[in-house]
Amino acid sequence: MTFTDELNSDEKELLDKVIRGEVSFHRLDSMTDKETAIKIRRNAVEAASETSFEHIQDHSLNVEEVTKRNIENMIGVVQIPLGVAGPVNVKGEFAEGSYYLPLATTEGALVASVNRGCSVIRKSDGASVRIFQDQMTRAPVFKLDDVVKAKEFAEWIKQPGILEQMKEKASETTRFGELIDVEPYVTGNTVYLRFSYDTKDAMGMNMVTIATDTLTTLIEDEFGAIPVSLSGNMCIDKKPAAVNTILGRGKTVAADVIIPAELVKDRLKCDPDTMVEVNYRKNLLGSARAGSLGYNAHAANIIAAMFIACGQDAAHVVEGSTAITTMEITKYGDLYCSVTLPALPVGTVGGGTGLGPQTDCLNMLGVKGSGNPPGSNSKKFAEIVATAVLAGEISLVGAQAAGHLARAHAELGR
Amino acid sequence: MTFTDELNSDEKELLDKVIRGEVSFHRLDSMTDKETAIKIRRNAVEAASETSFEHIQDHSLNVEEVTKRNIENMIGVVQIPLGVAGPVNVKGEFAEGSYYLPLATTEGALVASVNRGCSVIRKSDGASVRIFQDQMTRAPVFKLDDVVKAKEFAEWIKQPGILEQMKEKASETTRFGELIDVEPYVTGNTVYLRFSYDTKDAMGMNMVTIATDTLTTLIEDEFGAIPVSLSGNMCIDKKPAAVNTILGRGKTVAADVIIPAELVKDRLKCDPDTMVEVNYRKNLLGSARAGSLGYNAHAANIIAAMFIACGQDAAHVVEGSTAITTMEITKYGDLYCSVTLPALPVGTVGGGTGLGPQTDCLNMLGVKGSGNPPGSNSKKFAEIVATAVLAGEISLVGAQAAGHLARAHAELGR
Amino acid sequence: MTFTDELNSDEKELLDKVIRGEVSFHRLDSMTDKETAIKIRRNAVEAASETSFEHIQDHSLNVEEVTKRNIENMIGVVQIPLGVAGPVNVKGEFAEGSYYLPLATTEGALVASVNRGCSVIRKSDGASVRIFQDQMTRAPVFKLDDVVKAKEFAEWIKQPGILEQMKEKASETTRFGELIDVEPYVTGNTVYLRFSYDTKDAMGMNMVTIATDTLTTLIEDEFGAIPVSLSGNMCIDKKPAAVNTILGRGKTVAADVIIPAELVKDRLKCDPDTMVEVNYRKNLLGSARAGSLGYNAHAANIIAAMFIACGQDAAHVVEGSTAITTMEITKYGDLYCSVTLPALPVGTVGGGTGLGPQTDCLNMLGVKGSGNPPGSNSKKFAEIVATAVLAGEISLVGAQAAGHLARAHAELGR
Amino acid sequence: MTFTDELNSDEKELLDKVIRGEVSFHRLDSMTDKETAIKIRRNAVEAASETSFEHIQDHSLNVEEVTKRNIENMIGVVQIPLGVAGPVNVKGEFAEGSYYLPLATTEGALVASVNRGCSVIRKSDGASVRIFQDQMTRAPVFKLDDVVKAKEFAEWIKQPGILEQMKEKASETTRFGELIDVEPYVTGNTVYLRFSYDTKDAMGMNMVTIATDTLTTLIEDEFGAIPVSLSGNMCIDKKPAAVNTILGRGKTVAADVIIPAELVKDRLKCDPDTMVEVNYRKNLLGSARAGSLGYNAHAANIIAAMFIACGQDAAHVVEGSTAITTMEITKYGDLYCSVTLPALPVGTVGGGTGLGPQTDCLNMLGVKGSGNPPGSNSKKFAEIVATAVLAGEISLVGAQAAGHLARAHAELGR
Repeated sequence: MTFTDELNSDEKELLDKVIRGEVSFHRLDSMTDKETAIKIRRNAVEAASETSFEHIQDHSLNVEEVTKRNIENMIGVVQIPLGVAGPVNVKGEFAEGSYYLPLATTEGALVASVNRGCSVIRKSDGASVRIFQDQMTRAPVFKLDDVVKAKEFAEWIKQPGILEQMKEKASETTRFGELIDVEPYVTGNTVYLRFSYDTKDAMGMNMVTIATDTLTTLIEDEFGAIPVSLSGNMCIDKKPAAVNTILGRGKTVAADVIIPAELVKDRLKCDPDTMVEVNYRKNLLGSARAGSLGYNAHAANIIAAMFIACGQDAAHVVEGSTAITTMEITKYGDLYCSVTLPALPVGTVGGGTGLGPQTDCLNMLGVKGSGNPPGSNSKKFAEIVATAVLAGEISLVGAQAAGHLARAHAELGR
Repeated sequence: MTFTDELNSDEKELLDKVIRGEVSFHRLDSMTDKETAIKIRRNAVEAASETSFEHIQDHSLNVEEVTKRNIENMIGVVQIPLGVAGPVNVKGEFAEGSYYLPLATTEGALVASVNRGCSVIRKSDGASVRIFQDQMTRAPVFKLDDVVKAKEFAEWIKQPGILEQMKEKASETTRFGELIDVEPYVTGNTVYLRFSYDTKDAMGMNMVTIATDTLTTLIEDEFGAIPVSLSGNMCIDKKPAAVNTILGRGKTVAADVIIPAELVKDRLKCDPDTMVEVNYRKNLLGSARAGSLGYNAHAANIIAAMFIACGQDAAHVVEGSTAITTMEITKYGDLYCSVTLPALPVGTVGGGTGLGPQTDCLNMLGVKGSGNPPGSNSKKFAEIVATAVLAGEISLVGAQAAGHLARAHAELGR
Repeated sequence: MTFTDELNSDEKELLDKVIRGEVSFHRLDSMTDKETAIKIRRNAVEAASETSFEHIQDHSLNVEEVTKRNIENMIGVVQIPLGVAGPVNVKGEFAEGSYYLPLATTEGALVASVNRGCSVIRKSDGASVRIFQDQMTRAPVFKLDDVVKAKEFAEWIKQPGILEQMKEKASETTRFGELIDVEPYVTGNTVYLRFSYDTKDAMGMNMVTIATDTLTTLIEDEFGAIPVSLSGNMCIDKKPAAVNTILGRGKTVAADVIIPAELVKDRLKCDPDTMVEVNYRKNLLGSARAGSLGYNAHAANIIAAMFIACGQDAAHVVEGSTAITTMEITKYGDLYCSVTLPALPVGTVGGGTGLGPQTDCLNMLGVKGSGNPPGSNSKKFAEIVATAVLAGEISLVGAQAAGHLARAHAELGR
Repeated sequence: MTFTDELNSDEKELLDKVIRGEVSFHRLDSMTDKETAIKIRRNAVEAASETSFEHIQDHSLNVEEVTKRNIENMIGVVQIPLGVAGPVNVKGEFAEGSYYLPLATTEGALVASVNRGCSVIRKSDGASVRIFQDQMTRAPVFKLDDVVKAKEFAEWIKQPGILEQMKEKASETTRFGELIDVEPYVTGNTVYLRFSYDTKDAMGMNMVTIATDTLTTLIEDEFGAIPVSLSGNMCIDKKPAAVNTILGRGKTVAADVIIPAELVKDRLKCDPDTMVEVNYRKNLLGSARAGSLGYNAHAANIIAAMFIACGQDAAHVVEGSTAITTMEITKYGDLYCSVTLPALPVGTVGGGTGLGPQTDCLNMLGVKGSGNPPGSNSKKFAEIVATAVLAGEISLVGAQAAGHLARAHAELGR
């Protein structure tokens, strides 16, 4: 898997041209083979940065594939350590059984923490998970003449027949995706049309962008309105926003588990009451006081680690992690825990899912590629991710509950 | 760099024990060498998942180091393609010069987009960057008897001398970190103390957690209050929240550039007015309508790609990307663009910064390790990241402006 | 219209009993006539507070009516000065023509400010107004066993036939109101059902509460779920919230006007560019930086003054004022201004609309009572309120633009 | 107190001129006495609106005073019914004792609800109240050349000596007000300076606007920056916003009470557990799900009713009502309730506080006018308002807890 970065004379000549600015990084791809282009770019960056790369050249990716689909101006690879937590039992509608969770992270203690949560869930007979909604959205923005015209537009888009017409038009651009609905939102002369699609096993951002682009031509032809921008941020992609926490984007999924009080004591070294107390004052009251859109302990840690492992778009950690964590005492004195992820954008085809190591991780969960029926793999994956977040929340809230009140109890003899 | 996953008989025996549940993944680390432990875990997961790993075993990381600092239950490595954008000129107080930007991503077109933005900035004489604040925070939560006691607590913590006492106490736990201030926030009988620290070149989460833990013992001794949780979400870590966008966490940094109108036309294929229009209706009005904490096009994409390349905590993309992008016409008709990142948590020591490929990437920027003076490397890095976000915003807003209004103009002859 | 507060001997005896705590304020209503009860309560409060009322006894309200419908433990009346702004031309779908605006306020300069805005709108050929949505909501909250049961519930409520059944049931409780839709929102084991109704000319809070109460019995009978609370704050009433700014509550209404550049100079003493600049840096960027749900200058002032004048619920100023104000330069160099009020809860029947002075104010606008067809009066009223807000925004932004940049221009010769 | 609306011949002539548009409403004030001007305006509006006013002419206000300070284009008065709740015991630092609460509202059941809450608080030995912060803010917005200049500005304003210089300058504009601090917030080339003042017994908006206007001249002279607008919405006035809920504006005040379990059963007809449950699922989880800045049941109702009664600015209900309500079970099984109002803008001098009926209401609470020491009256008033909100929350949450779960319990035999 190693490269030599030694250059032959042709390569050296090319390098010199790059350094002199006569050949751009991008043009290299068409002037030589992919691997050589990578090597020359790397040498050029080394020269410019006055450094010497020792690690980024080590990799085992299929360069032809990856430079076509995943990256431009490639110079190598970053390696992220991969750990495993679990197994954890998932009782979903798509994921049913016991799973090891792949977690790619550089933050020590994270895998151990999730692992502890998995152990607790496992001994509690598994986590239940349900998906409440599944849609990917794209919202072009239009400028109309005024509010009068804006209303005409908002009414036109909701006319009988228009949605059907748009569904058909959208279907021409995608084999799997289906337009579900469109909703107009108005601000003065500005109108946002929030299109929502079922994108099956794809996360779907590209699919809905292409489909929506086609729909804007229909809108232009039929109504005469042209978008200012194909994305108007009412979609809203990779920004934390109430529109997504309320209406959902990607999968809206919730997981829960009842943990016997005994188990809380044995494994988490605290008690249900204290965990409820921590969750209440930290995740609910604290987040409220902070003006937060996330009411959880560290959902983003788990989302990031699983997304990186499984070839998801890492920037989607933003909305993927706007979770609400709840903890309550059941009537039998046990601990009820839940997490709700309103906007989890995931896919098992496309994006980074085709890369070698990421494929390994998806295979670990049995969700690689298109499911049967289509959409079932991404849903299964979403259920597992939600369970992983649940495990992480249980473990961290437990640690915070045990660490400090425990110390207090010890010292103060309570 | 390749492993063979063939096991010898001792290893097979160990594997069997793991599969039968007699030995946990975690215990393996103390029963054999690290590499063997990794191999056995991988085999166990393969067996359990009924899959066969082909790629995650390929890596060049220092297993001793990485299993100590970065990961538990390691089974291998995930590879993220690394591309390069730039160079881009940065006119900061710490970063001064021309930089190639390392971007680790699996999302095709991202590197190309940032690269185009870099090109525009370069031809516009570079981006100016300034850091307005630099602090890492931790906010334990306390339950007091009632509002009367809460006020006593809030007043006590602000008494003359207390801050000095806490600064000294905190300094005992860290060689570099310095307590800056503490601010109380009250909700009924619940009090949050938001401690802020200068953590120099470290992102600092661990540092401030340890220091704050020590301070809670001082608070317990002197005032008698014990935290419910060492983190009360007024910190607030890895959740999108107004407290961070308003008061800052990590670096508060802004970058800007004036792009000549000619250049907008030549390189971005549109004009300043149209870009201002897109930014206004999408990034400002659209985000406002969506109830968003982020007013940008795709800051998260760039933050995620640079964070993964440079060994940052990928979960920090959440607050790191709550950027505001502005675009305005200057009095000479050129395009003024800025991005403001209120809460960018970055470090050049600790976390994933010590891993081989990540070290390569930090070296590319000349920011590896502790700076001279301490803190200067992380500040330099923050300035470069802000510039990268600026490049990304210019490019994407430009693309949205060009793509659609251009088409409209062509077709409608406007 | 004046009372004498002198008491006869029977009344004195009753007063003594009240003061001694033998008779409660509330019980007085059934022990004597309403006016005497008011007088005795007033005397009792005077004694307890050691003050002597001089003004609250002066009023001309119909005591029988007002104590039945509007107030308990009445002791008198507060007078709010009533001014008038306008006339202003409204080009709505319900309000068409010229209106004087009744504004009840104690804040000097407010009426003058709105009046100036009306003058500008009048000379600009009037404001266009459109209503984009009209619904009052109520969202009971249910606790289910777990996420599995929560999903069953969320699916059950969307089953074919259920909405029709609920519409019929709801119609039994109200002559005018109509159930429009119901949408489930889930957080772990907690489910919110957001019911939306067309409440015609009533603001409708009571109507939808009664109707929803009835629907909860249907839900209990058919599905077995019982609400924890008839209101679960997903409604959400009298709290600023994204769910209302995004999905609407009450009327979603927008008004706009194009103001000729000349007029901006003559009447507002500034220019369109400067007003756009103030609106951009203050109402958009400033509100974004502040983490605000309102993007306007002082919509609340106008909403409050018109609500108090016209017998609306003053607490509804909270969501009624979450307006977005936009200002843009038209292609002819004139000033386009708009306001969008996403959640304006108003009514022309019920509540305080039946009181004498409030009736006068509603008559001033020609919107008293039930419209023909039902709903048209409250819609007309909403259109006028939106226009009033537009007038207020134009005037204040204009004042801020003129006051300061004007001074700067003068002094610096720019 | 009654007017006759019959006009003499001079008045008729004037009316004709007004109707013909030869004399504006505003000019009338200088052409005749105030009462006649009011009468003529009223007649003109009657003519234009084709209605006949029957009630707005009835009032007892001092027309000379009110037209000078509180209203322009006066045509009469709106009467708001005034009820009384209480008494309620307040254990504050300024309010100590038993108070009847004046509530001006047109919404039936509100006074009764607050009254029930007062009764519960009274029997629970009173509410404790504390003020945690007291400041009125004003934040002008400046446009600088770029981020470099923005940083110079942000650093300049924090230079040693500048604050002292500004404090002295500000003190020249106000007898009572004192500049406390100034904090810069940057977005690209835009800088907001948030000035905070102690405004003693005045709500203080005018005071801080005048003082800040003077400070902008100092800033212009010393640094050369001129504000785009004297208010840049980082203040932020009359808009719901995180900057106020986090940092406070007006009074930040919290009130609490412990209600014995017996009392919850006797008076509120439910039990502490059920009330905690309702508060949790509605006020906390529900508000979180709704993307709300208010975590309460109906704080706005009480704030609005007391503000109108006591001559406060009714538009301040917006931020005044962003309350967090908490309910918890104490270790003895009783009910702990608190409300926290982060941004309550109140005053006992200026604004509407000088009007006759409003003076009566302030006298009822013993807070009319300037306190001794200055500021003590407005603080006392804030403590009483917070207690009133607490009473309202207890009563409504209790009602929701009793109404529905009670029914459920009865029917299901739980």
